[in-house]
Amino acid sequence: MQKKTITLDHGSGGVASQELITSLMLNHLPDPRLHRLEDAALLPAQNGRLAFSTDSYVVDPIFFPGGNIGELAVNGTINDLAMQGASPLCLSLGLILEEGLPLDDLETIMAAIGACCEAAGVPVVTGDTKVVPRGKGDRIFINTSGIGVVADGVHIGTDRIREGDAILVSGPVGDHGLTILAAREGIDLGRELQSDTCALHRLVQDLLAEIPAGLHGLRDPTRGGLATTLAEMARAAGLGFEIREEDIPLQGVTRAGCELLGLDPLYLANEGKCILIVEAAAAEAAVVRLRAHTQGRQAACIGRVGGSSPGRVILRTRAGGSRLLEPLFGDPLPRIC
Amino acid sequence: MQKKTITLDHGSGGVASQELITSLMLNHLPDPRLHRLEDAALLPAQNGRLAFSTDSYVVDPIFFPGGNIGELAVNGTINDLAMQGASPLCLSLGLILEEGLPLDDLETIMAAIGACCEAAGVPVVTGDTKVVPRGKGDRIFINTSGIGVVADGVHIGTDRIREGDAILVSGPVGDHGLTILAAREGIDLGRELQSDTCALHRLVQDLLAEIPAGLHGLRDPTRGGLATTLAEMARAAGLGFEIREEDIPLQGVTRAGCELLGLDPLYLANEGKCILIVEAAAAEAAVVRLRAHTQGRQAACIGRVGGSSPGRVILRTRAGGSRLLEPLFGDPLPRIC
Repeated sequence: MQKKTITLDHGSGGVASQELITSLMLNHLPDPRLHRLEDAALLPAQNGRLAFSTDSYVVDPIFFPGGNIGELAVNGTINDLAMQGASPLCLSLGLILEEGLPLDDLETIMAAIGACCEAAGVPVVTGDTKVVPRGKGDRIFINTSGIGVVADGVHIGTDRIREGDAILVSGPVGDHGLTILAAREGIDLGRELQSDTCALHRLVQDLLAEIPAGLHGLRDPTRGGLATTLAEMARAAGLGFEIREEDIPLQGVTRAGCELLGLDPLYLANEGKCILIVEAAAAEAAVVRLRAHTQGRQAACIGRVGGSSPGRVILRTRAGGSRLLEPLFGDPLPRIC
Repeated sequence: MQKKTITLDHGSGGVASQELITSLMLNHLPDPRLHRLEDAALLPAQNGRLAFSTDSYVVDPIFFPGGNIGELAVNGTINDLAMQGASPLCLSLGLILEEGLPLDDLETIMAAIGACCEAAGVPVVTGDTKVVPRGKGDRIFINTSGIGVVADGVHIGTDRIREGDAILVSGPVGDHGLTILAAREGIDLGRELQSDTCALHRLVQDLLAEIPAGLHGLRDPTRGGLATTLAEMARAAGLGFEIREEDIPLQGVTRAGCELLGLDPLYLANEGKCILIVEAAAAEAAVVRLRAHTQGRQAACIGRVGGSSPGRVILRTRAGGSRLLEPLFGDPLPRIC
């Protein structure tokens, strides 16, 4: 029996589009504002500044150990909002489907999106679906945009980073990038290796409750990994960063996989981790608070702001040497998210 | 000399991405919130309900008489917000670029986006750029999402449509759809034929100032055209619509082109028109007000709500007959926006 697939009619805006949306998509996305199927959703007035973010997801493969493109799209945009200290309010969902995409695959992805939204408490309230002919896309691309609300008194930004601040990371790095690479190349690195995709907004909100003014810098090290994100933060802050290789959390399976394939885990993407720059006095309390969360179980302090190379990141190696961590130039691993 | 093109490195999130963004894109998008290059933009607190909308644009060809994919993406999302009675506040911009896209083409599109945003007074405040390998996309796909603010007292929705209301359209229909079809197929229908892409938020705001409570229904007839959008509105309202063929504005060049190609202009997409359902007593004043705008010069009353077919649209033809306007099922013309 032939599998049902996406056809160009599904992108017409006509009855076939409506049927796809109502029969397959809305099942997984219960928000009544979305079910109105108007061109825009209406939200009640909000108290506080708004955060607004967008990301397109083109990951290849679309299914991988630990998740699929749908989970990445929900968690990624939630995290972009969370990195501004915002409480995520809602998401939009824009799908670009390639003719021939099996409806079963779309259903699996929509179910993942629905489950992630429900777990995070952040609904999809507006959406759009387009279809492109076979060979003009790659199965599915997803854009999610999101709105969040930033409470008064929260001010996170590289301009607030100060000499002496502690540099924290919320958990082991490199898992997502290595998972995608292994899945794409068909390399089996063991079942423990999987994407770290998860939403970090509750962890951040909880930390802000603990140290409202002590959280200075916050970024999620996605494309380009820990090293590139730190390099961008150091440059933007105009201050030197020093980090200690031995303190950077790394899973055994990731370390072994990277050694096997000759990859540096500090440059591999993460989809459920954040870098936190906190005032020195608050560092210990911050690590304790992070470790109380599932998503922060292995949080660690990995270094400090300061040193003789303003705008640069110095890695103190296990062997006792030191090495400049340059930002990534090009793309060793395209389509990681 | 070889033309410079997009490479996979431009999507890496590393230095090559940053160079593309700062050298080519930010020139055209001056908003300082975007120039911070954080993962999300921060906006001041807003008074009023929020409208939130998203749309992906996959139009083929990307350049056509009257505009390009960039203008469609800006005006389209502004219009989706405007159709809820919102004043558009800001946009996000998500680009999916295919490896090999000439940088000159990207520059032309970015310039159009910048010019449209400036003309509309609606800035891009946050963005994202991804690159997919050659053959896995089609030059450029654009997602724009937008936030608008809805003033107190504005309530537009199909549930407010009443028996006896007048049905207005803001100008001639079918131009965008016919333009894209002709451009794609290489058919020359004359220089007067071009896309109607434009932003309608000022026209709507002006009308709301004139008849704050009299505007009941508002939609832009994009994919599926006037007929499909009216059919959706009639079904949602649970009321019959009757429209008069002779009163529907149609440019001569569009009428002639449709006759030549055997197309029905009522089913062709528009990107700068709206359908307005207003209370009967306000209809005349509304048409006068619409005609005072460049975008509403040829606005007309084309019918009324009522009749013996609840949830259906009846077209009274020029010849004196009548015809049921069914919504489009599939896609006679894919990738129109």
